[in-house]
This record gives sequence, C-alpha cells and structure tokens, in this order.
Amino acid sequence: MKPFEELTSLEEAMDLILSNVERIDRFEKVDLEYADGRVLYEDVDVPFDVPPFDRSAMDGYALHASDTLNGSEETPAVLRITGKQHTGDLFEDIIGLGECVEISTGAPIPNGVDAVVMVEYTETEGNLVKVFKEVKPGRNIAPAGEDMKKGHRVLKVGEYITPGKVGTLAALGYENVKVYERPQVGVYSSGPEIAPQGQELGPGEIYDINSFTISSVIKRNGGVPLRMGIVPDNYESIKESIREASKFDLVVLSGGSSVGSRDLFADVVQEIGEILFHGVRVKPGKPTLFGKIDGTPIFGMPGYPTSCLNNSYVFLTPGLRKIARLPPVNRREITVKMGHRMESKSDREQFITVRIREGKAFRVFKHSGDITSMTHADGFMILPIGKSIIKEGEPVQVTLFND
Amino acid sequence: MKPFEELTSLEEAMDLILSNVERIDRFEKVDLEYADGRVLYEDVDVPFDVPPFDRSAMDGYALHASDTLNGSEETPAVLRITGKQHTGDLFEDIIGLGECVEISTGAPIPNGVDAVVMVEYTETEGNLVKVFKEVKPGRNIAPAGEDMKKGHRVLKVGEYITPGKVGTLAALGYENVKVYERPQVGVYSSGPEIAPQGQELGPGEIYDINSFTISSVIKRNGGVPLRMGIVPDNYESIKESIREASKFDLVVLSGGSSVGSRDLFADVVQEIGEILFHGVRVKPGKPTLFGKIDGTPIFGMPGYPTSCLNNSYVFLTPGLRKIARLPPVNRREITVKMGHRMESKSDREQFITVRIREGKAFRVFKHSGDITSMTHADGFMILPIGKSIIKEGEPVQVTLFND
Repeated sequence: MKPFEELTSLEEAMDLILSNVERIDRFEKVDLEYADGRVLYEDVDVPFDVPPFDRSAMDGYALHASDTLNGSEETPAVLRITGKQHTGDLFEDIIGLGECVEISTGAPIPNGVDAVVMVEYTETEGNLVKVFKEVKPGRNIAPAGEDMKKGHRVLKVGEYITPGKVGTLAALGYENVKVYERPQVGVYSSGPEIAPQGQELGPGEIYDINSFTISSVIKRNGGVPLRMGIVPDNYESIKESIREASKFDLVVLSGGSSVGSRDLFADVVQEIGEILFHGVRVKPGKPTLFGKIDGTPIFGMPGYPTSCLNNSYVFLTPGLRKIARLPPVNRREITVKMGHRMESKSDREQFITVRIREGKAFRVFKHSGDITSMTHADGFMILPIGKSIIKEGEPVQVTLFND
Repeated sequence: MKPFEELTSLEEAMDLILSNVERIDRFEKVDLEYADGRVLYEDVDVPFDVPPFDRSAMDGYALHASDTLNGSEETPAVLRITGKQHTGDLFEDIIGLGECVEISTGAPIPNGVDAVVMVEYTETEGNLVKVFKEVKPGRNIAPAGEDMKKGHRVLKVGEYITPGKVGTLAALGYENVKVYERPQVGVYSSGPEIAPQGQELGPGEIYDINSFTISSVIKRNGGVPLRMGIVPDNYESIKESIREASKFDLVVLSGGSSVGSRDLFADVVQEIGEILFHGVRVKPGKPTLFGKIDGTPIFGMPGYPTSCLNNSYVFLTPGLRKIARLPPVNRREITVKMGHRMESKSDREQFITVRIREGKAFRVFKHSGDITSMTHADGFMILPIGKSIIKEGEPVQVTLFND
C-alpha cells in the first residue's frame, strides 16, 4: 500500500489538464435542425444581401416621396392606388407620379417609388388615398443588406452555435453546416467489488455507479460517452483495456475504492504512458490521476461515487469542454447565508455539497462513499485551505448544479 | 388591416400561459444512460440497504476492538494476521480473539470483528501486526444502509434527474427507469414570403428562419420539435394544418410579417378554438398570440425573426418547461455597467439585446426584422415601461443567453 508521494494543488492540476488536452480537429456535416449547441467548423460569408431586396418596414402605401410635399392634416396629398404589393411577390407595373400601391410589412419595394407612408397617416376613399403627412425619401424602407451585407463574414470557425446563429444560417439558405465532431470518451469502471446492473449482487459487491454519473456529465458537456464496461481488477486486464486509449479523444476510468486498485491503474499508466499528476489537494477526490497514453489524455477517477462525480465536475468538465471547443461552463452562482455553524478541518481544498432552503445553505452531510450526498444537493461551495469554520449566517458563495 | 384592440401586459400574458398549459402525463422507459435531464415518472423506494453490507472506510486491519485495549506507541497490541479481506468478496473464516485480517477500503467487514484500525497506526512483522492505538468498537466501519436505508423513498415522482440522481438509480441496480415523455411540439411556418432552404429565392422571398430558431429553443427546453413545413398563406390551408393541433402537446406557428398574415391565423384560432391573448405590451414581439385548440395550447409568434426568437425565450420557454415538468430555466444574470448612453422610448416593456465587452454592456443595435441582432448578442436586459434612458456607466442587469 503506497501513500501519495505529494499532492498537486487544485490550480496546478487544472493547468496540467488544460495544457495537455487538444482541441478536436475532426468535423461532420449536420442538418441545420441539429446545429444548435455545436461548434462551427467553417467561416460563414454572406452569399447574398439579407434581406435580398429593399422592403417595407410598415404596412402602408409605397409612393413617390415628392408627391407628399407639404401634405398635412389640413392639406393631404391625394394619390391614386394602382395595386397591392403583397409580401412574397413583386409588383411589376410602373408606378407613375401621383400613384401609389398598398404595401405590407416585409414586402419588396416596387421599382420607382422611394418611400412608404404608414397606414395610420392615411385615409382611403375608393381607389384614392389621402396622405396627411409629408414623407421623406427612404422613409420606412429597410434597404437590401440591412441585416447582412453580401461578402461580410458573419460567423467564424470555432463559434458556439446558439439558436440565434442557427437563425443566421437559416437566413442564408444553409440546409446543413460543418461542425466539429463531438469528442468520443471511453468510460471504464474497475474495482473487484463493482458489479453490472441486471444481476444479483454477490457478497461484498455493489453496483457500478460511476460509469453512469461520468457519462451523464460527459453528455452534458458536449462529449459522446462510450461505456466500455467493467474491467477485471488486475494489471493485465487494465493494461489491455487502456492500451486502446488512442481510439478515443479522452479516456476516463473510475477505480475501485481500495488503494490496491488505484495503484494498479497508476502502474499501468506509468508503464505504457505518462502520469501528469496523481493525488490532488481536494476533498473529496484526492486519489485522482491524470496522464496521457499515445497522446490521448486519460483520467483516473476515485472509486467513491461522490468523489468521482465531484471530480467529474471539477476536472473532467473543463478538460472535455476544451477538447470539444465549447465555451467554459456557465454555472449560476448565488450568495446565500449559511443556515448553521459548520466546522470541517482539512489540509485540502474542500468541495462541500449544500441544499438551499429558504434562501440559506445547509450542508448535505454525508460520507464520500455515499452517492446520496450528490443526489440531494442543490450545489456546492468551496472551502479554501486554511478555512475550517463557517459561522451561522455567514455569507457563502454556492455554485448551483441545476441547469 | 386591423390594429390590436388592446395589448396584454407581460405579466398577464405569462399568467395566461402558465395557467393554460398542462403538465404532460405520458411516460416512457429509458435506459439509465439516457435518464439524465429527464423527469422521473416513478417514486424510487430503496430495495436493499446501500451499501448492502458493513464495510471498511479505510485501508487497515479488521479486528476485535477489545484486543486493542490500552494499545499505545509504547505498548502496542500485537495481533496475528490470519488473512486478507479484499473488496468484492467475503472472508469466510472465523477470526478469533487475538487475530485480525488485512482489509481494503470498501471491503465488507468479516463476521465477528467489530472495528478497523488504519494502516497508518500499525506496523507488521511477518504475520504479526503491532497496533499502536486503542480502537473503539465500530471505528472505521461504515454500516450497511449508511447511504440509503432499505424502504426509504429516496427519489419522488416529478424530480428532475441530474447526474447525481442517475448515480442513485445505478446504486439501486436500475437498468432503466420510467420518465415522463418529452412534449411533442408541432412547429409551423407561414407567410407568403417564406421559402424553404434548398431552393433559389424568388422575387420578394426570404428563407424560413423561425422554424429553425423555435425548434432550437424547444430542444434546449426538453421538447421534441416537429417541423411541419411552410403553410400556404390562406385561411383554408392554415385551418387545415392547425386543426391537427391535438396531435401535439403544443403548437407554435410563426406568421408572416404583415398584418394580413397575422390576422388570418388569429381568425382561424378564433373559429376553431379560443384566443387567450393577442398582442402583448413587449418590444420586440407585440404581435404574439396564445390560444387553445381542442385543449392543445398554441402560440402564434411574430414573423420577424428577432421578435420571434425573443418571444420564444420569453413566452414559449416557461410554458414548454411547465408542460415538460422541468424546473424553471436557470439563466445566469450579471450586473454590469452600460458602455454608452442609450435612449429608447416605448409604451411597451423592452427587451434589449446587448454584447458584453470588457465588463460593459453595449446595445446590439438592429431592427426587429434582423436576425443578426440575436446572433451577436451575449444576453438581454429589460427596460420597464416608463424607463427610456440608461446613462453611460449606469449598472444594468443582463440575462445571459449562453448555457
């Protein structure tokens, strides 16, 4: 049984992760309806003016502005209505001086006319319309290209696609779009006590929890989890599995709870790859490993479910999001008062799960072997090294789990 | 061309939506790996103690506490090691007084012994171990059921499933779980100027934007968007399409930009269903309609892309999340200073899209017909009725779009 030689700080561990993962370079084409939430692989240059034509910004009458000179409530200009300009088609007739056409919002401006008067400033009498206002040239006309000018680079490689950007692509006629592939993440469980669901538990066995929680976190952060099953807890089996790391963009293995299991995995990574850190100054989750095999980053997560899930949020999420080229996770933080005095001594940075009740934080007090400490938590707070007491009523910053 | 008879306030509109949509009642069974983000349809009662057995919380030696009485650095208790208790199996031999077994974290406590001493407080010599400490009964033993007690209701119908709750279900041996179905949302576009992607634009035509942005918002909020295509802009075609509303849990139609298109839709809903509001005191997005047909709620969204997307966030999202039984959307809000003086008069509540640059908010100044005002925005702020000026440097609250 080997203790850790030295623990890596939270900050240093994050640096090592972020400087040792590489952004994905493969792409795929997806239909526009699946583009939201993905990352653009291509620059988007506007192929034609949007809107493609001058259009009316109002319902009213398209006319020659000069015909309305000195128009007012008392002395309206009187024009002859020669037709209707609907949206979706184009009025082809020539509109002479003294003439106008009824026009709908969004409809193209017919040739020749140079302004639109809002229907509110007019009154019709048969095929005549009184315009109670002088209208300036260009009034209520949204020019072609007002939204996007032909040739402009409206979206760039690497942008995260939002519903608004899907709208831009739709406006430009895209049926599909090139996006970066989602990182493929191999997820392994190990530990002699770990049994798959769907069979009776033998003596001393518990069900596999971590591959499910890790996979859920991976999916929420732009990755594709590939659950590779439970690896027999011996050196050769672990080596055999981990050897295929380079099939994936990232590998996550959660170990058994015992030091023995943990060491097997570290020894394998040491032999066929490189350990970048092993043992982090955080609680829970000290026995976390990060390394590389054939260029593929690999995480060894603690076996205890709460530790494993906590470190999936803390370490795996930022690493995976960098590979996936996603923006950093945007969790909501709130400041609330502590609902009770709390004391927790540690020489490690502590992640403490809390519930929020009536605007106050209450610790979800559980052991790191318990999955339910995460199940019923609303979020977590961080207790830095050197701080061990929070007084009742003291303000604390809580990062919320829910999205 | 009919103006709106009276506008509904933002608050009243929200009340009408939330009191007229019903939570979904159908369920489906999903494999546990797809359960995250869904909503539980069943109560979860713990079928067996978790952990199912007393287990060691430490690496060390399992022993009879009474054997360590008065053990100390100077006068260690000396015990005979009779075997190893690994995780994942059960040591069957009887452990007599004066005897102990090596035990791993997470391994079951063998019969008879009542405590575990941490390896740090021991020293081995051949098959003997010196224990430099008196160990109390129960020490370092995590009892069966410490995490979840058999019979306890650990999760309840209607809970939103998080990675932590997936972990709980996994621990209980669930291979699949009953969850509420995702609401099916019919998405229609209409407007004579709207053309599908994949064909050349005719005169006066623009591509369909809204069905893609609406569908993206639906997907982000737990719904299944079903894009039903572009409905010809006449009374009979709209009626024919909308008649099938009850096939869906919710229907969203985005209209053409002209008053004429808008009125067609309102007239159809009036004839075959019920209008709950038409015209909202918000900017952009006034021409929004909400009603019901055969019990199915139906939204009529403004045709202008920015107005449509804005109102999808403001009105559709909370309504859909209620149907889907999801918790309210948890957007991040930040308070920043306005980067410039801004004046915008309106008798409506104004949603103003902004970019954040160097910690300051800058208005994305665009027209409501422009999709790009949403494309390049980081979030929005709300200008209440009666407020029309924001000074440079004035603090404003911005709700961020990104997730």
